[in-house]
Amino acid sequence: MTVLQDDRACRIALCKVGEPMDPTIGSLVAERGPVRAWHQIARNPASTYQRFAARVADLDVDRVRHAADALHIRIVIPSDPEWPSGLNDLELPPLCLWVRGPAQLAPSCVRSASIVGARLATAYGETVATGLAHDLGARGFSIVSGGAFGIDAAAHRGALRAGAVTIAAMAGGVDRLYPAGNSALLEEILLTGAVISECAPGSSPQRHRFLARNRLIAALTPGTIVVEAGIRSGSLNTARNAERLHRVVAAVPGPVTSTSSVGTNELIRQGIACLVTDVGECVEILGDYGADLGPCRVGEKTAVDGLPEVPRRVLDALAPRRSCSVDQLTRSAGLSVGEVLGGLGALELNGLAVRSPEGWRRAG
Amino acid sequence: MTVLQDDRACRIALCKVGEPMDPTIGSLVAERGPVRAWHQIARNPASTYQRFAARVADLDVDRVRHAADALHIRIVIPSDPEWPSGLNDLELPPLCLWVRGPAQLAPSCVRSASIVGARLATAYGETVATGLAHDLGARGFSIVSGGAFGIDAAAHRGALRAGAVTIAAMAGGVDRLYPAGNSALLEEILLTGAVISECAPGSSPQRHRFLARNRLIAALTPGTIVVEAGIRSGSLNTARNAERLHRVVAAVPGPVTSTSSVGTNELIRQGIACLVTDVGECVEILGDYGADLGPCRVGEKTAVDGLPEVPRRVLDALAPRRSCSVDQLTRSAGLSVGEVLGGLGALELNGLAVRSPEGWRRAG
Repeated sequence: MTVLQDDRACRIALCKVGEPMDPTIGSLVAERGPVRAWHQIARNPASTYQRFAARVADLDVDRVRHAADALHIRIVIPSDPEWPSGLNDLELPPLCLWVRGPAQLAPSCVRSASIVGARLATAYGETVATGLAHDLGARGFSIVSGGAFGIDAAAHRGALRAGAVTIAAMAGGVDRLYPAGNSALLEEILLTGAVISECAPGSSPQRHRFLARNRLIAALTPGTIVVEAGIRSGSLNTARNAERLHRVVAAVPGPVTSTSSVGTNELIRQGIACLVTDVGECVEILGDYGADLGPCRVGEKTAVDGLPEVPRRVLDALAPRRSCSVDQLTRSAGLSVGEVLGGLGALELNGLAVRSPEGWRRAG
Repeated sequence: MTVLQDDRACRIALCKVGEPMDPTIGSLVAERGPVRAWHQIARNPASTYQRFAARVADLDVDRVRHAADALHIRIVIPSDPEWPSGLNDLELPPLCLWVRGPAQLAPSCVRSASIVGARLATAYGETVATGLAHDLGARGFSIVSGGAFGIDAAAHRGALRAGAVTIAAMAGGVDRLYPAGNSALLEEILLTGAVISECAPGSSPQRHRFLARNRLIAALTPGTIVVEAGIRSGSLNTARNAERLHRVVAAVPGPVTSTSSVGTNELIRQGIACLVTDVGECVEILGDYGADLGPCRVGEKTAVDGLPEVPRRVLDALAPRRSCSVDQLTRSAGLSVGEVLGGLGALELNGLAVRSPEGWRRAG
C-alpha cells in the first residue's frame, strides 16, 4: 500500500475500496477530509473498516490513474473547475467522477435537464422523449440521462440531433458502455458530450449502483422530466431523488390504458411532478425566470367570441338558411325589439348576419 | 294574461318569458319570491322589463302545463322533494326543472358523478368514459351528462350497461331529444333514468342555453370528471363551473400528442382538476370518506425486494451461471468475509443463491 498524501489520490483510493454512498466513508470524508479518511481506513483493516480490507490490499492508485489516462478517462474532484456544483447538494456526494468525452460538466449543467423513463417504452414515449430532448437542446439545454434502452436512449438521440451536449451517467465504469446494445449511441455521445460515473473503470453495473447513479442524474440538473414509467420503473427513483433535492420534477402524462404511463400519471396525481406537454412548459420551469416564460394555452378566437351578450343571443336565434322577422327574433331570443335591432346591426357589421327581403338570416 | 297566484305557476311563467340565468328575473325572485316577481314583470311591460313583453303577451300557463302533462313531463320546483339540493348552490338557480323519465332526481344525485367531455372524442376517450361510467354505476353512482356525441354518449352508455341511473341534461326542451343522432340513446335513458332541462318544452338548443346547461351538470353532482377535451371544448366550461361551486373536479390524462386531451391535460396542469386513472380513484374523491378509500398504487413485491442491504449486495455480485468464491465476492461487493458469508446464508434460505463445488452462483 502506497502512502497517499494528496486529495485526488485519496479520493480515488476511497472510491476504489468503497461502494457509492458508503456511509462510513461519507462521514469520514465529511469530518476529516479525504486524506485523513483514507489513512483511517487503510491503517485499521480490522473492526468497522474490515469490509474494505480485501480491496485495500489490492489497491495500486498509480496503476488506476495510468489505466484511466490510457483510456482518456479524466478524474474530476470537487476542487476542479469542471465539478458540477449540483452534486454538492447530495447528502453523500460522489468521491470523484470518472469522465469520458469532450463536454465540460460544470458549464454543461448550468442550463440542462434530465430526461429519464422506462426501458420498456412505447412508440409514444420514445417520440415524446426524442422531441422534448431535441427541442430543449435547440434552446440551449444539455440533456442528462442514464444511457438505458427506451426513454433514456430516445432522449440522448434527440439531444444529439439538435447538436446539443448530452451526458450519460453510468451505473458501472465508463470503460464499459452499458447496455451493450446502446454502445453505438454511447460512442456517438462520446464525440461531443460525456459519459460519466462515480464508479471506477472496471466496475460492473449492479443494482445498488443504479440507485446511486439515479441520484447523480437528479442532482446534476435543475430538473428531471419523466416521460414514461411503469409503476416499478427506476426513473421514479430518480424523480424522488430530484424531489428530495428540491429540483423541479416534471412528468409527461399518458393514456390511463398504458402500463408505461402508470408511474408518470401517479407522479402527477400525487403532486410530486408537474404535468408538462411540450418544450415551452419545460423551459418555463427549468430555464431562467422571465426570459423563458411559456406559452399561454388558449384556443383560437373566432369572430363570434368577440361578440357581446345581446348580438350573440340574436345570432343564436337566427337560422342559417331560413329568414326570420324581427318579431320572431324577439320571441325566440327573449329580447326587446330595440335589443334585437341593435344586435342585428352589430352582426351585419361583422358579416355574421344578412338582410333579405323576407327578414334576416345567418351569413355564409 | 291570466293572474297567477301560486309559486309553481309563476315559476313556469317566468321560465317561459326569460332565458336561463336571466339576472333581472333571478334577482327579483331572490328578493320578492316568484309570485311577486312575476307580477312585477307582467304588469310593467315597459322600461327594464320590455324585453319580456312579446313573450308575456303570448303566455298561457295552463296550456303549457297541459302540454307538459300530455308529454309526461313533470315540472319540479325547489319546494318539491325531488328538487336536487345541489342546484341551490347556484348564484342563478333554475326557476324549475322539466323532467322526463322515472328516476327521482334528488335521491339519484346524492351518490353521483358528472362525466363530460369532447364531442370529437377518440376511441381512447370513449373507452375510458364508458368504462368509468360503468364501474361507477356498478358502485352505486348515478351518472349525469349532457347527452352529446362523443364522451357524453359514452358515459350514458356505460351507466346503462351497469344498470345505473343516468341523467341527461338538455340545452333545449326535453321534448326535443338533442342531438337527433343520439335519440335512440336518449329514449333508452328515458326508460330508467331521466332527461331534464331548465328550458320549457319547445325551446331550441342555443349557445347560451348550452352554457347554462353546463352549470346544471356541474351543480347536480358532488363532482365532475372530464375524460377528453380539446382546448375549446364546452366540457372545460362545465369543469370551471364545478370548480366555482367547490365541487370535485377530476380529469383523465391523455397523450400529449392528442388534440382531444389538450384541455384535460391543461386542467390537471393548472391544478383545476385532479388526475384520475381509474374508478377507485374517482370513488375515493367523490364517495363517502373512509368507506370509499381508493387503492394504493404500488408495484408487486418480489423476493428480492424484501432483502436487507447486505444480502442484496451479495446477490448483485453473484453471477447467474458462473460460480464465485467467497474471496471474489468480498472484492466484488465491497463487503467483509463475515458479511458475505451471512448474506449467502440469507440468500440460500430464500432460494436465491445456490452452493456448488466451485463456489456460489445465483439460483434459477
